[in-house]
Amino acid sequence: MSKSLTKRSEDYSKWYNELVVKADLAENSAVRGSMIIKPYGYAIWEKIQAQLDKRFKETGHENAYFPLFVPKSLFEAEEKNAEGFAKECAVVTHYRLKTNPEDPSKLIVDPEAKLEEELIVRPTSEAIIWSTYKNWIQSYRDLPILINQWANVVRWEMRTRLFLRTSEFLWQEGHTAHATRQEAIEETVQMNNIYAEFAEEFMAIPVIKGRKSESETFAGALETYCIEALMQDGKALQAGTSHFLGQNFAKAFDVKFTNKEGKQELVWATSWGVSTRLMGALIMTHSDDKGLVLPPKLAPQQVVIVPIYRNDEQFEAVSEVAKKIKKSLQEVGVSVKFDNRDTHKPGWKFAQYELQGVPLRIAIGPKDIEKGTVELARRDTLTKEFVFQEELVDKIQGLLVEIQDALFYKAKAFRDNHITEVETFEEFKSILKEKGGFISAHWDGTAATEQKIKELTKATIRCIPDNIDKKIGKCVLTGAVSEQRVLFAKAY
Amino acid sequence: MSKSLTKRSEDYSKWYNELVVKADLAENSAVRGSMIIKPYGYAIWEKIQAQLDKRFKETGHENAYFPLFVPKSLFEAEEKNAEGFAKECAVVTHYRLKTNPEDPSKLIVDPEAKLEEELIVRPTSEAIIWSTYKNWIQSYRDLPILINQWANVVRWEMRTRLFLRTSEFLWQEGHTAHATRQEAIEETVQMNNIYAEFAEEFMAIPVIKGRKSESETFAGALETYCIEALMQDGKALQAGTSHFLGQNFAKAFDVKFTNKEGKQELVWATSWGVSTRLMGALIMTHSDDKGLVLPPKLAPQQVVIVPIYRNDEQFEAVSEVAKKIKKSLQEVGVSVKFDNRDTHKPGWKFAQYELQGVPLRIAIGPKDIEKGTVELARRDTLTKEFVFQEELVDKIQGLLVEIQDALFYKAKAFRDNHITEVETFEEFKSILKEKGGFISAHWDGTAATEQKIKELTKATIRCIPDNIDKKIGKCVLTGAVSEQRVLFAKAY
Repeated sequence: MSKSLTKRSEDYSKWYNELVVKADLAENSAVRGSMIIKPYGYAIWEKIQAQLDKRFKETGHENAYFPLFVPKSLFEAEEKNAEGFAKECAVVTHYRLKTNPEDPSKLIVDPEAKLEEELIVRPTSEAIIWSTYKNWIQSYRDLPILINQWANVVRWEMRTRLFLRTSEFLWQEGHTAHATRQEAIEETVQMNNIYAEFAEEFMAIPVIKGRKSESETFAGALETYCIEALMQDGKALQAGTSHFLGQNFAKAFDVKFTNKEGKQELVWATSWGVSTRLMGALIMTHSDDKGLVLPPKLAPQQVVIVPIYRNDEQFEAVSEVAKKIKKSLQEVGVSVKFDNRDTHKPGWKFAQYELQGVPLRIAIGPKDIEKGTVELARRDTLTKEFVFQEELVDKIQGLLVEIQDALFYKAKAFRDNHITEVETFEEFKSILKEKGGFISAHWDGTAATEQKIKELTKATIRCIPDNIDKKIGKCVLTGAVSEQRVLFAKAY
Repeated sequence: MSKSLTKRSEDYSKWYNELVVKADLAENSAVRGSMIIKPYGYAIWEKIQAQLDKRFKETGHENAYFPLFVPKSLFEAEEKNAEGFAKECAVVTHYRLKTNPEDPSKLIVDPEAKLEEELIVRPTSEAIIWSTYKNWIQSYRDLPILINQWANVVRWEMRTRLFLRTSEFLWQEGHTAHATRQEAIEETVQMNNIYAEFAEEFMAIPVIKGRKSESETFAGALETYCIEALMQDGKALQAGTSHFLGQNFAKAFDVKFTNKEGKQELVWATSWGVSTRLMGALIMTHSDDKGLVLPPKLAPQQVVIVPIYRNDEQFEAVSEVAKKIKKSLQEVGVSVKFDNRDTHKPGWKFAQYELQGVPLRIAIGPKDIEKGTVELARRDTLTKEFVFQEELVDKIQGLLVEIQDALFYKAKAFRDNHITEVETFEEFKSILKEKGGFISAHWDGTAATEQKIKELTKATIRCIPDNIDKKIGKCVLTGAVSEQRVLFAKAY
């Protein structure tokens, strides 16, 4: 299999698809729309999971596990939520197969094993969880409930792309219950902040925090907070969402608590999630025409050592140094792989680790042994230098920090250069076409205008950003009065 | 809710069900046969996962993720495997719901969204994984493949019990591919050994390693290795299995590799798994009439501190000492919770932590402040003693090791006392009735005899144990020649 990728400038979409497969991150499966996450891709996902899980637990959340299946009668209880997901639900209708009487080597669905009530494979778990919280909550003493679950969910998609849009995906979903509106809103904001901090600090992905417009708000929520990232092709990607659900699910499932004054009140809710979609954001933020570029904090291996040799004697000499270096790096907490396979040549290995985005590559050959050096190559800049072996550990520790920062600032500069303020709809269209990125424009706040702009340009409101000066202006489409600028973009 | 449990001697099964719910481990859900794993139960499961995952990675395995759904045509490819699971499969037949025209507040399955090919919710993943391995394996260089996945699976069960038998459960399933029969068998044995070591060292559950008889072998495997544990009521519980699959799946999915001599060969396979069933084994090995008893290595909190006070002044004095103790314990890696809630009285807390099996409980009151002591209570023995505060950290570190060992040896003594050699079928029946446990008996090796014994006694062959002197004898039922004793028991 050739390792070279289509260039991003030629066909960004093709480049992405090739990269995901060739870097061994994921591939399509025999099941329409479902992906296989391969070990290298899953190792990155495990790093994402571990970091997020730590942050959730530090803020008082606990993990639990709720059923995969949701009985239809529960699923439809919160009407807006049900309506929002009804068209993409996988439905279990039978619980048994039997031998095909016409061909004993085949199986058929046993018509006698039809379920009385169909089961929906969870597209999200508010319904099953709030039907459970009803039994857990009686008094204010039972609140708050701060629960997260790591799970698979299914949303039937007609057009799928690895990581970005798959029928089955992995995610975490937090579901919290609170005594007051204020506390629930604070939780919603806190979790969106955690997502933003994680994306920036750990994944080196700059994000804009904000709220969704009504039409983009989660089905069943009063308000959706989000983090929005910008991909290299100028399209936005929603990287995480945190929903203030108000009392909608408490109403649907009759979840009340007795407050300190002895009165019954409906419980307030939030839910929040990020998914394997983050893998797509990661790829399209940092990678280049040679393949994946990984921030050191996410790389399953931060350093790879490739030996260069022509005979057994050289191999042994080089290996000895390589093992020493590996050990001293591991001692300071750097993850490192010594690829001593004799089934592949150095050139093949170089290309492979470039493709897989290993942040630093050490090559050691016989001449290095003589000189006490190694060749150190940096994945993000593709630069190489010779480094004395005794200086290597310090050098690498410094570089890993430097690369992590450099990736973030590079992505941030690109993102900042791709937020364009426009005043007219002509400008809006021309910027969208010529430059892409976020367009900061006034909007009259109506769903009709939003819809119209979407029809005319395919751009949607990505978010109503936080931390923006609220200045009155005129809607870019209708000229009607607008309270603040919002960010439009074409999006994944 | 009353915290007292039915006594084990009165009704073991009822005791178990009550314990699982009252200790906040799990509960039944609105979905028939599916459980909710509550935060406390899930925290124990996370500890199990972390330890197993570490052991898998240390032995060269990587995690990956394969689809939840298996197309029927793939599912039925390996006939024995398909036959073994066909009767307990949840089947997805549709991918969309629509509004009920007769009642717009309800949803119905959209008959126009019927799948061309039904999807099976995985009861196990050999089929989907081997249909994938076909594309990954061409040459001996591609072998071995050593992959594990943490996932949910569904096996439709008519009679379910929390953790022990649920329609959906969580597990890990390893799926490996090898160039030789020998290497695959070694992998199978290695993983069974890892399960045994983990169960004994970490969960303090003594297990017997062995192989299954043919009738109990996994559907599609040539040989199933297992670890068998003994519960307090004298019934056995299969705690983990490791399967040598031979070339059955390679044949079904046509997975061949080119060996070093350039010839095509079928690939050899193993699969191995443990599940949330381990939670049931844990409970029924160590717990008592007062609730759960947790080995320190598995306890989400190893120590809990309960303050005793009558007024704010006392609370502050006690809290100061408690916080100091908490900090010094955390510094040496002991997990500890200081329960300073004023919503519950000390007596309630004592009962709660007994029920939840926290290994050590510290109580601190005003008199302790005066004397420089604390009251230290041990969950497994229910003994209490006063300990000087300055000696506490050492004391607790020692006790945690002691409790871990004590639980294992207590369980092992019980298990060893419940392995009874019998020579006649009369003895077999009377031991099974009066004493329970494992019955070590000669068996003529035929499925017919095994079946007959099962019909007559409900006891099955739990395993053909490793490490047993092979002595010729006479089958306990038929008197025919037998090569070695096997272990029978009634089982969960």
